[in-house]
Amino acid sequence: MPAVEIVEVAARDGLQNENSVVSTAAKLELIDRAIRAGARRLEVTSFVNPARVPQMADAEAVVAGLPRRDDVTYIALVLNRRGAERALASGVDELGAVCVASDTFGIRNQGQTAAESLAVACETVALARAAGRTAQITIATAFGCPFEGEVPIDRVVEMAKRAADAQPREVALADTIGVAVPAQVTEAVTLVAEAIAPLPVRAHFHDTRNTAIANVWAAIGAGARVIDAALGGLGGCPFAPGASGNVATEDVLYLLDRSGIATGYDRALAIDTASWLTGLIGRDLSGKVRCAPPFPPAHGEAGPRG
Amino acid sequence: MPAVEIVEVAARDGLQNENSVVSTAAKLELIDRAIRAGARRLEVTSFVNPARVPQMADAEAVVAGLPRRDDVTYIALVLNRRGAERALASGVDELGAVCVASDTFGIRNQGQTAAESLAVACETVALARAAGRTAQITIATAFGCPFEGEVPIDRVVEMAKRAADAQPREVALADTIGVAVPAQVTEAVTLVAEAIAPLPVRAHFHDTRNTAIANVWAAIGAGARVIDAALGGLGGCPFAPGASGNVATEDVLYLLDRSGIATGYDRALAIDTASWLTGLIGRDLSGKVRCAPPFPPAHGEAGPRG
Repeated sequence: MPAVEIVEVAARDGLQNENSVVSTAAKLELIDRAIRAGARRLEVTSFVNPARVPQMADAEAVVAGLPRRDDVTYIALVLNRRGAERALASGVDELGAVCVASDTFGIRNQGQTAAESLAVACETVALARAAGRTAQITIATAFGCPFEGEVPIDRVVEMAKRAADAQPREVALADTIGVAVPAQVTEAVTLVAEAIAPLPVRAHFHDTRNTAIANVWAAIGAGARVIDAALGGLGGCPFAPGASGNVATEDVLYLLDRSGIATGYDRALAIDTASWLTGLIGRDLSGKVRCAPPFPPAHGEAGPRG
Repeated sequence: MPAVEIVEVAARDGLQNENSVVSTAAKLELIDRAIRAGARRLEVTSFVNPARVPQMADAEAVVAGLPRRDDVTYIALVLNRRGAERALASGVDELGAVCVASDTFGIRNQGQTAAESLAVACETVALARAAGRTAQITIATAFGCPFEGEVPIDRVVEMAKRAADAQPREVALADTIGVAVPAQVTEAVTLVAEAIAPLPVRAHFHDTRNTAIANVWAAIGAGARVIDAALGGLGGCPFAPGASGNVATEDVLYLLDRSGIATGYDRALAIDTASWLTGLIGRDLSGKVRCAPPFPPAHGEAGPRG
């Protein structure tokens, strides 16, 4: 089986969706721990309006504090030209641009229609390329919108084609609200991979309805080789007990390790970091492998974890 | 897509693995609610040693109290001849026999080696058939053992063949401890389906490591048309916060509904029953769809559930 790259998004998509604001030092510790567990590409922050997203107000400080390593790529999310300029000035390796497949969600989330968000994303890639940096484009709500419901696959494929024209590093399909099912993922990844070849497809899932691991597996089966995940499953809404955020990195590692797919991660270290994160956030996180006995068992007996 | 039959196991595998003992009346209410939600085949109890499994001590009373319906099949689990005789005397429709793919687990769980458990399971089928009842055989720990680790697929296929020789209604592969991954499920269900054709394969998954929905999808993709599930995801170990039991019926319904696969269930009623169950058990259950907003949204807006 081919190797899969996991993009660790806990420090950005995870923390951005937590109610509590975490210190810059704690974010840097999270990033350092993730790298020690094997992460080599990480979303570390977003350059967005601090009045709207106070969790990411320290974007410049986070980037300034990152360990300098030639073997690690740091991504910062941006939603407009001002964010892109801040991100480029910070020196971060890669820009993550986000367009939205649903007009209603786009207007509510970032004040842009689908078409406007796509134009901004393409402009962001051009700015990054002009500055000698890479950038990628994520299509948010690619599998469903909380306001409009089903999102037509044709619209997503068309947006992916136009995004690919801007020459990003890759195009990501994001299940922003965790509604996707694997049959849908198989179809979408297959069609988008055909439409943007030779650019790779990246996939981003939330586990809100318990389908994220199935969707990861379907995406890989359809050709995706880059998967987003957050340690612990960080990013659940703190107002809804049991609600889930991103698919948990350590759960993806269990799936891939036992399927013979290399990721470069150490699962035990990822579980340690997920456990540390529960302490940092002060609540239980939704990842499950962290809470389960190890398998295969260490000494012929069920042990404590993972 | 073909229709899939869900066997509702909350009243047996769910409650048997909960610490608290639920009253016979509450069990019968659970069964009644499950039927109203669409269940037409249900594991309702097990005829086992009440000293070892006090949760199932009222097996005869549960069967005596079941609503009499021609369109519903009730299954009782048995592990030996005495259990089979009690079950047949109770008048339950169908016997569920369990053999174990791992000697160590078999000896610890039911005092039988793998070979002994298979012989007892085949004898159970013969007793049921002689009494004009149906019976099925489940192969437990088919995807891994907490003591022995990996279980060779050849052993499972060989056991399935011998089980099929007894002419059960079907042969089920059970991931008793929730370790399976979808690649493994695809292989096992494909090989077992070939080995026991025309008998159907049934599949039983626990969500301990977040792989159960992926495994359900893989099993269906490989030809399984009967899937076990428990409302709410009942059956987690009460000593491990966040630990998961059976795959949640309502989560399976979300997967299948959005994939265009008919089950005969009403998802909203299943979610209602899962919510009622959290009150009965007195703790949060692991199913996720119950805690999520409905999708597609009811009125173009995110609503409260499902």
